[in-house]
Amino acid sequence: MDNINVLVWSEYRQARKDPEVKNLYPEGINSYIANFLKENQINTSTAHLDQKEHGLSKKKLAKTDVLIWWGHRAHEEVSDEIVERVHKRVLSGMGLIVLHSAHYSKIFKKLMGTSCSLKWREDSELERLWITSPGHPIVKGITGDYIELQEEEMYGEYFDVPNPDQIIFTSWFEGGEVFRSGITYKRGQGKIFYFRPGHESNPTYHNKTVQKVLKNAVKWANNTSINSINFGNSPEMLN
Amino acid sequence: MDNINVLVWSEYRQARKDPEVKNLYPEGINSYIANFLKENQINTSTAHLDQKEHGLSKKKLAKTDVLIWWGHRAHEEVSDEIVERVHKRVLSGMGLIVLHSAHYSKIFKKLMGTSCSLKWREDSELERLWITSPGHPIVKGITGDYIELQEEEMYGEYFDVPNPDQIIFTSWFEGGEVFRSGITYKRGQGKIFYFRPGHESNPTYHNKTVQKVLKNAVKWANNTSINSINFGNSPEMLN
Amino acid sequence: MDNINVLVWSEYRQARKDPEVKNLYPEGINSYIANFLKENQINTSTAHLDQKEHGLSKKKLAKTDVLIWWGHRAHEEVSDEIVERVHKRVLSGMGLIVLHSAHYSKIFKKLMGTSCSLKWREDSELERLWITSPGHPIVKGITGDYIELQEEEMYGEYFDVPNPDQIIFTSWFEGGEVFRSGITYKRGQGKIFYFRPGHESNPTYHNKTVQKVLKNAVKWANNTSINSINFGNSPEMLN
Amino acid sequence: MDNINVLVWSEYRQARKDPEVKNLYPEGINSYIANFLKENQINTSTAHLDQKEHGLSKKKLAKTDVLIWWGHRAHEEVSDEIVERVHKRVLSGMGLIVLHSAHYSKIFKKLMGTSCSLKWREDSELERLWITSPGHPIVKGITGDYIELQEEEMYGEYFDVPNPDQIIFTSWFEGGEVFRSGITYKRGQGKIFYFRPGHESNPTYHNKTVQKVLKNAVKWANNTSINSINFGNSPEMLN
Repeated sequence: MDNINVLVWSEYRQARKDPEVKNLYPEGINSYIANFLKENQINTSTAHLDQKEHGLSKKKLAKTDVLIWWGHRAHEEVSDEIVERVHKRVLSGMGLIVLHSAHYSKIFKKLMGTSCSLKWREDSELERLWITSPGHPIVKGITGDYIELQEEEMYGEYFDVPNPDQIIFTSWFEGGEVFRSGITYKRGQGKIFYFRPGHESNPTYHNKTVQKVLKNAVKWANNTSINSINFGNSPEMLN
Repeated sequence: MDNINVLVWSEYRQARKDPEVKNLYPEGINSYIANFLKENQINTSTAHLDQKEHGLSKKKLAKTDVLIWWGHRAHEEVSDEIVERVHKRVLSGMGLIVLHSAHYSKIFKKLMGTSCSLKWREDSELERLWITSPGHPIVKGITGDYIELQEEEMYGEYFDVPNPDQIIFTSWFEGGEVFRSGITYKRGQGKIFYFRPGHESNPTYHNKTVQKVLKNAVKWANNTSINSINFGNSPEMLN
Repeated sequence: MDNINVLVWSEYRQARKDPEVKNLYPEGINSYIANFLKENQINTSTAHLDQKEHGLSKKKLAKTDVLIWWGHRAHEEVSDEIVERVHKRVLSGMGLIVLHSAHYSKIFKKLMGTSCSLKWREDSELERLWITSPGHPIVKGITGDYIELQEEEMYGEYFDVPNPDQIIFTSWFEGGEVFRSGITYKRGQGKIFYFRPGHESNPTYHNKTVQKVLKNAVKWANNTSINSINFGNSPEMLN
Repeated sequence: MDNINVLVWSEYRQARKDPEVKNLYPEGINSYIANFLKENQINTSTAHLDQKEHGLSKKKLAKTDVLIWWGHRAHEEVSDEIVERVHKRVLSGMGLIVLHSAHYSKIFKKLMGTSCSLKWREDSELERLWITSPGHPIVKGITGDYIELQEEEMYGEYFDVPNPDQIIFTSWFEGGEVFRSGITYKRGQGKIFYFRPGHESNPTYHNKTVQKVLKNAVKWANNTSINSINFGNSPEMLN
């Protein structure tokens, strides 16, 4: 099997300014994730908002098998041209993993076609992510019925997204809410996984089970079965 | 619009023996539900396990638009022949509303094709049923984001059912669990709604909002668009 | 039941210039459809591209229960601001029926999140639309297993759309292709139906069964169960 | 990666009696399929109706990763006890590939919960299986938009099965019908693929592309991500 090329993108703004975030992710969330993902068959690199073309050149994207996206306060600063470029790559088969507050990113909203709105409360409370699709590659090797995080931001339903293909995790929050926290979609030939946890001031990505989920998700989202599609007369081509 | 003929079935065993259940449902859960469902365009009648053919004669079923099923301890006493008969009627377009512990009924397991297993704990705890499909006819007129029941039995994931068409409610339980509590399916031309709450020793069906959900569900499950299907050479016919 | 307010939109360009189209639809496709839809409980009006705000003012849309969209060669001339406005109304519960070449309209692409590409051939060939969801309100009262159109443009798979909620019709074409010709989606609280036939130089909308399908679709897409959604802290509101 | 243990089951009746079938599949359809599937990481064995326990002992099934099922005229001769046994293994994660006339097998009907009825015509006509889920592992490496079979039995819609998770192939038949010919489901932790072609008197399984589809399907259906599920108080356990 060929290696998987993973590109981890984040805004990389708060990690440079906010001491609390800096303390958890000194090199940024993108670098932190890229580091723990690295293993035998996974190559990782990073990109961020303030790089040229947000670090997402055509060349770079063409070589990317799976893109991981973490965004929070600067969604509007991502250029529409780059969003269009990422969108085309997803439809052509690049995997996309969307994390936490990136539910409001331009690319996720464009792929979903809905508002992607939700309820939230920043209160570092207990979250339990119940496995609701046992047997799915994304929960391979996860033991127990749920993943427990002692401190997380709450996201609550209604989450305005299309009916997912699979609901991998459903969260329970201490304060009384529930949330579809791990959901999959296929758009064109691209596989998409939205994963809820990952508030910048909680140590969520330090959690070994969360890391395991993301490693599994990378392998799942890497589409090695891409077909050439012929649209005949049509002006647009997917591939 | 024609009236809707609803038949409400329950075992009607515990309501005759157990004082706690008798106190809540003196004439049985079937009669209690049949009473509150009655309105302008809804005709209701009841049936129970100990009647001839469990009260589900061919003639009776042929006239039933929506069948409501509550069962608990006597699933195995329901005859396979009657289950087969109900199954055929569902595929031909009769609506089916499956309540609470009827997740383990023969008819629900036959329609789902899975074990329908789940976790449970009888502890009269707080349940919140969050609306996860706003805009669906089953939650028409329900105000607020959730329905709250002070005392219910807990059912927890993993609930071994096929991916639902729609998840209308997702429950949060005080003790830390979540559950897909209101789920819809179409099998053949029949519309199916499974609704979780309704433990026999809690006053759940006395709750006005729960009653509203069941009224809505009856209207939704009543299929007024049944087509005649031609299977040509095939030995089995749906209609 | 309240009346349903249907707004039928088309570019209304070809019907003014092209003699073949003018002959079939002298007042435009929008007016032709609006006329046959009118009945007891359906009010209809029309709008087209060259009107102010494309005939889709905020006031007009606010009163519209179901919008029907036929577009072909001028998709790019529809302003992004109006598309945004229609999109918000769909998420808030307005029904949307997308016809034929409007698969490439901005609004459909925005709601789907995919390229919506397909194969096509303009050859006035035989099409059979097989019913693949009997018992669905959109095929209520349609007798027989399929609808046959003697002359239509061919659209062929692969059709790059998300997995539909229901596939109501699957087409067979004389030339050897198949197509998912009647597909439903829910986005936010809005119900969406894409219906393939309707080439401007074929008399498709003169066909009584096609007219029946569109009447059924209007009733289905009219969402009378809209809930008020509370997104708490979130900046965007659906309703 | 561990090897995949595939067990290919067929009635093995017609291949012993009917000269036409014997000519195509001298050792039976099960042996023929088992032979072409064999490769580096796939171990195959066969079983048939007239063996003890239909060749499906508990021990044998426990070691089977993917079961392939071809049945036609003797569905009723398969014992309910063995069907129950296979069903439990599927829910626990064994893959199941159901071929052609096995749409009417007890095991498929039990897993679907519907009649699985369809239209058919035995006329050795042209079939084109259009790819309607490009990018899916089951069509990996299949070039072109469709697979063409010169002579096959026709199966036509309506096919009474639950809404599939994915529709991999949609067939076009010379005589005017369409059919959802390659469909996937997940039940419990088991992955299921129904594949339409394979009439016993047509050389379908001799076709190299059909063989490729079945090899792909075996790899897809082999679930290497099985979780241990805890149902707490529940009497039934999936795993």
